[in-house]
Amino acid sequence: MIIGIDIGGMSVKGGIVDRNGKILHRASVETKAKADYAEIIADIAHLIDVLLKSAGIGIEKILGIGMGIPGTIDSKRGVIVYSNNINFIDVPIVSELKKYYADTPVYINNDANAAALGEYRFGEAKEYKNLVFMTFGTGVGTGIIIDGKLFEGNGSAGAEGGHTVIRLDGPKCTCGRRGCFEVYASATALVRQTKAAMKKHPESLMTKVVSERGKVSGRTAFLAAKEDDPTAKKVVARYIQYVGEGLVNIANIFRPDVILIGGGMSNEGDAFIAPLQGFMDEHLFGMKNGNPRVAVQKASLTNDAGILGAASLVL
Amino acid sequence: MIIGIDIGGMSVKGGIVDRNGKILHRASVETKAKADYAEIIADIAHLIDVLLKSAGIGIEKILGIGMGIPGTIDSKRGVIVYSNNINFIDVPIVSELKKYYADTPVYINNDANAAALGEYRFGEAKEYKNLVFMTFGTGVGTGIIIDGKLFEGNGSAGAEGGHTVIRLDGPKCTCGRRGCFEVYASATALVRQTKAAMKKHPESLMTKVVSERGKVSGRTAFLAAKEDDPTAKKVVARYIQYVGEGLVNIANIFRPDVILIGGGMSNEGDAFIAPLQGFMDEHLFGMKNGNPRVAVQKASLTNDAGILGAASLVL
Repeated sequence: MIIGIDIGGMSVKGGIVDRNGKILHRASVETKAKADYAEIIADIAHLIDVLLKSAGIGIEKILGIGMGIPGTIDSKRGVIVYSNNINFIDVPIVSELKKYYADTPVYINNDANAAALGEYRFGEAKEYKNLVFMTFGTGVGTGIIIDGKLFEGNGSAGAEGGHTVIRLDGPKCTCGRRGCFEVYASATALVRQTKAAMKKHPESLMTKVVSERGKVSGRTAFLAAKEDDPTAKKVVARYIQYVGEGLVNIANIFRPDVILIGGGMSNEGDAFIAPLQGFMDEHLFGMKNGNPRVAVQKASLTNDAGILGAASLVL
Repeated sequence: MIIGIDIGGMSVKGGIVDRNGKILHRASVETKAKADYAEIIADIAHLIDVLLKSAGIGIEKILGIGMGIPGTIDSKRGVIVYSNNINFIDVPIVSELKKYYADTPVYINNDANAAALGEYRFGEAKEYKNLVFMTFGTGVGTGIIIDGKLFEGNGSAGAEGGHTVIRLDGPKCTCGRRGCFEVYASATALVRQTKAAMKKHPESLMTKVVSERGKVSGRTAFLAAKEDDPTAKKVVARYIQYVGEGLVNIANIFRPDVILIGGGMSNEGDAFIAPLQGFMDEHLFGMKNGNPRVAVQKASLTNDAGILGAASLVL
């Protein structure tokens, strides 16, 4: 059995997972994002104890502990180089956790990398040996599997597909550059695009959707577009172009079997995924000359992607 | 000994190469780009005979024949899927050449892929196991070495770094999309940018450079910039930004040890390469958080990159 730990900005989720990717026991704890790292790690150790207790087993039955963490993670050295949302800078989290579980192997990786590996090991796409996993949520995350192995780049600093410029001199990105894919394609970006369209077209059905649901979200435009609202349809079409351009860029570089779509936006399902496949088929390099197709599919592990991805790091 | 064949739009160059990347004998023949493929292949077979004769050896002394070819090349099937400049569409060139040399292994690949492998095997960057090779000439070519192996993507259709959009809704590219890296960063693009600046600023020193040298080229702006011409300096600075954005995009995805710069533009040397390194250091993701640096260097094999790259396919 394996322990998978999914460290997020709001909560740390843990699970005891078998070799087939079945989650047998779950537990979670609030992330004290501003606390000293030793305190966060003590909470994780306690979470592991809770999991072991609920399973009625000792740590010696555990093959290893895997942890998925947002940010720049040096998986080889076992160090969190930098995490945007949590007070983790240059934290040797593997050796710190080993103070609690000295004899259990501990593996860490970036959360999108871990989720990509989880999809490859446990998801519906496991027949594909070359896949790219992209999440569209607060930001844009990327995980890359080449020939069945996670590709990370030097110091695990690669696979930053969200930080590739798709519009020269565009709006500023958190990374310091201008016009990154993330600035156009994250759910956060869609919220901005939706707000701008609502301001210009207050008569849009989106105004009603927002008044019913309390606030503008990544769902707003998709919901109103379903009701044939013309402004919402334009917002959705433009957003799909943004996401599509970035996907085709990645596909032209990696030419994987499949690009899996995860993150909050993937919950829009076919309204989001199907037009992305259309965009891919239309714009992918050399399709008219017999180059292989790239499938676009919804990632299959959904809410369990974090725990299962973390667990897959152990295998 | 190995035979390396570099198939270009103008000429086919061949060489007999030893295991250390030394070219012992050379020969070349004009490319009959519009001819039937059987005729081009007969010319290549004849070129090989000439090489063997000048070396005074038989084909049985040759470990293998490697060929670098522009376009989409399916290296596994040994088929030229599509070549832009030569009349090659769906040509099983490996089996065709084996009609002449049945017992000699024949390997093919895209010319930029072959050149990347050549740099890795025989160039000054051979201490690096993760490198990206990019050519800036008529187009923008990309070759990717990961952990000492050529990365090609499915059907060898990946590594099309020139065909990633860096400006949404930008000018049309030959691939059908808008705003590709190649549209901004090829030598052809620089010629366009130079012409536009000269039209706006006929007083620029670039006008004199062109009248002396006969036509606008990728050198024009660099030559006038060296003489402190303000318009030329602006053209060069903007061009370097274009190239830089694409290099940082690639570096954020692959985080290689080094990006090697080849193609005609690389002849500008430090005036081109040094500011690209500066751009990389300034814009690469997470540099302030301790992420590893990516070096930008001139490719070292220059004029022999084609033959040596082709030869390296055999090793």
